[in-house]
Amino acid sequence: MRLRREEQLDRLYMRMACRLAAKAAGRTSPNPMVGAVLLRDGKMIASGFHQFAGGDHAEIVALKKAGTKAKGATLYINLEPCNHYGRTPPCTRALIAAGVKEVVVGMKDPNPVISGKGLRALARGGIKVRTGVLEEECRTLNEAFTKFITRGVPFVALKLAASLDGKIATASGDARWISCEESRATVHRLRDSYDAVLVGAGTVITDNPQLTCRMAGGRDPWRIILDARLRIPLDAEFLRQRSSDKNIIVTSDTAPAGKIRALENLGATVWRMPAREGAVRWLPLLRKLAKTGIASVLIEGGATTAAGALKEKMVDKMLLFYAPKLLGGDGRYMIDSLGVGHIKQSVMLQNLTIQKSGADLLVSGYLETSGAGRLR
Amino acid sequence: MRLRREEQLDRLYMRMACRLAAKAAGRTSPNPMVGAVLLRDGKMIASGFHQFAGGDHAEIVALKKAGTKAKGATLYINLEPCNHYGRTPPCTRALIAAGVKEVVVGMKDPNPVISGKGLRALARGGIKVRTGVLEEECRTLNEAFTKFITRGVPFVALKLAASLDGKIATASGDARWISCEESRATVHRLRDSYDAVLVGAGTVITDNPQLTCRMAGGRDPWRIILDARLRIPLDAEFLRQRSSDKNIIVTSDTAPAGKIRALENLGATVWRMPAREGAVRWLPLLRKLAKTGIASVLIEGGATTAAGALKEKMVDKMLLFYAPKLLGGDGRYMIDSLGVGHIKQSVMLQNLTIQKSGADLLVSGYLETSGAGRLR
Repeated sequence: MRLRREEQLDRLYMRMACRLAAKAAGRTSPNPMVGAVLLRDGKMIASGFHQFAGGDHAEIVALKKAGTKAKGATLYINLEPCNHYGRTPPCTRALIAAGVKEVVVGMKDPNPVISGKGLRALARGGIKVRTGVLEEECRTLNEAFTKFITRGVPFVALKLAASLDGKIATASGDARWISCEESRATVHRLRDSYDAVLVGAGTVITDNPQLTCRMAGGRDPWRIILDARLRIPLDAEFLRQRSSDKNIIVTSDTAPAGKIRALENLGATVWRMPAREGAVRWLPLLRKLAKTGIASVLIEGGATTAAGALKEKMVDKMLLFYAPKLLGGDGRYMIDSLGVGHIKQSVMLQNLTIQKSGADLLVSGYLETSGAGRLR
Repeated sequence: MRLRREEQLDRLYMRMACRLAAKAAGRTSPNPMVGAVLLRDGKMIASGFHQFAGGDHAEIVALKKAGTKAKGATLYINLEPCNHYGRTPPCTRALIAAGVKEVVVGMKDPNPVISGKGLRALARGGIKVRTGVLEEECRTLNEAFTKFITRGVPFVALKLAASLDGKIATASGDARWISCEESRATVHRLRDSYDAVLVGAGTVITDNPQLTCRMAGGRDPWRIILDARLRIPLDAEFLRQRSSDKNIIVTSDTAPAGKIRALENLGATVWRMPAREGAVRWLPLLRKLAKTGIASVLIEGGATTAAGALKEKMVDKMLLFYAPKLLGGDGRYMIDSLGVGHIKQSVMLQNLTIQKSGADLLVSGYLETSGAGRLR
C-alpha cells in the first residue's frame, strides 16, 4: 500500500525528530529523549533535542533557534509537550506564545497523571494538534522512560552472549571471546545508553570486568554488583575505574561491616538490602534504584543473576548475541535453572527481532514483567 | 546497482528453471534436480523438469513439448546438459539435433570426470553457450548432489529444535512442543526432500517417533537408526509405518543375532558396521549409504548423535530452529560434549542465514566437513 504524500512527510519529519532525540541517549535520564523539528511552508526552519535533564526541552531549543520565524510554523515532536512547571516552565505556553500553528506528536506523555494535558492546552491555545504519527517507533525509543515513569522501577534489559548451542564458556571456563568485535562494540554502545549495568558477584570473581564504556565520547554507566555475601575481592577491576563514584554494591544484612567500610573507602556505595536464600531481592532493589534516578538497567550476567531476574519476572527485554559457534554440552549454560518442569511453563519472549551483528546474530525480544512494580 | 535488462531476463529465466527443478525435490536422487525453459523470440515456448531418476532429463522434456518450434530457440537450464550415455542418451545431441541456437547454463556439472564436456559438445555443435547465470542459487539447489557426486558420501544436514537458551527438553524430559506448528511442518517438507532421516537409538527410546513425512503428497524418507548395542524396542513406532521397507538399523558386531532376525522379520534392514567406544563409525556408514544410492541424510537428533557427527566432521549444514522460549540451565542440552577446551576450538558455522518460521527462528549455516570422504 502506498502512503499518501502527507503521511509520507509526517513519517519523514517524525523519524527526523526521533533521530535527533536519540542523539542524547543515556544523557537525559530520568527524563525522556525528545527531538523537535519546526517547518514553515514545507521547509525546515529549526530543530533541536533535549540534551540533558535540566536543560532546555527539545521544542524550546527549536523555538529559540527559529526566533520570530516560528510564527505559523508546524512542530514535529516525538513526545507530547509538557504543560507543567518542572525544572523548566511549560513548553505549551512557549509554543502558543511563539504563534506555532500546528503540533504533530508521536506519542502522548506516558505519565498517567499528566498524559493528554499538554495536547489539550495546545488546542485551547488555538493550535491544531495531531497525535500518533510513527507511534510505535516513538514508544520503543522511550520504552525505558515509560516503564520508569509508569511503574516506579527501571526498565530492565538482560544481555547475554552465547554460542548457537546456548553456551557462554567452555567446560574449562574459557569465554574469550565468544562474540565478535562488532557485538562487543554494540555492548559498549548499550553501556553508553543505559543508566546502569548490573552483574552478580560470580561474574566479578570469574571475569573481573571493568564494566566501563570504552567508545569514543561514551560515558560510564552506574555499576551495580549483586553480592549478598560480599564475596568480591577488594582489588576487583571495576573498583579501580575513573568513574569509581558510580559503583553500587548491593549486599545483605549478613555482610561484614569491615568489608563494607573497605569498599566505601574505595568510593563505592554499599546498600544493605533484603535477601532470600542468599540472593538479593529484586523488587526492593529496583525500587531503590528508581528512587536514585536510575531509569534503565542492563544486566550483563552471569547465569545465576540472569535466572534470578527472570524467575522474579523483572526482565523487560532480552538482547541475545549468538556467535556462529558450537561449544557442546559440557560448556557452561547461559541461564541457570528457571524451575521449568513443563514446556508450557517456559519463559516466553514476544516481538522477536533478528539482526546480524558482524559475524554474530542479535535476537531481541520482550518479556512479561511482574505487575508488582506497578504504581496504579 | 541496476542490472542491465538482459541480465535481469537471464536471472528471471534461470530462476524459473530452478523453481521447476525444485518441484522434484526428493524424487530425482541420486540424480540432480534440473529444470529447463525454452524461449524463442523472447517468448517461452516450453519448459520441463527431471521428474525421477531414469525419467527424461529436463531439456528432453522441454524439447519434446516444443517439437519443431525448438529450432532457433534459447534454452535456460540450471545444470550443464549431459554428454554421455547413462540411463538415457546424451542431451547435447538432442539439443544440437533440434536446432537450438543458444544454451544458458547455471552451473557446470560438478562431477569432475565430465564437467565441461557437455558445454564443449554444444559449442562444437554450433550452439552459443553461456554459463554461470545465478550460479550460487543453482549450486545451493544441488548442494546434496554435488557433495554426493564429488565425495562419494551423502550430504549431511543436522536439524535441531531448541529454546533460545539451547535446550531441547525440560529437566523432566518434556519436549512437546518446543517448536511451533510451522516449524514442524517445515520438518516434514525436509523429510520429503532428503533421501534419508537419521536418529540415534536414544531418540527412538525416549521420543518413539514415526519418522514419516506427514504432508499432502509427501513421501517417506529412508529411516536410519544408529544403535550399536541394538537397544531399540521391537514395538518402536517407526518399525510399524507403511514404508517399513525403508528402515535401516545400523548396529555393531556385538549385536545379538536373535534381535537382528526379529528386526529383519519386521521388514527392517540391519547393517553390522564398525563401531568404536560403543558408537557406530560415521565414515564407513556414509560410504555405505552412498553406495545404496542415498545422496542426502537429515540427522534429527538427539544430542549424542549430533555431537558424534559433529566431532567426526561429517555435518555439512545445520538447521537450527529456535522457539522464543527459555527453559533454564537444568533443561537438556541440544548437543553433547564436543571436546572443546578453548573457544578457538569451537565448531564454526559459515554463511549464516536467518529466517522466521512462524513464531520460531530458523538459523542455517554450513560447516567444514572432513576431507576423509573426498574421492580425489
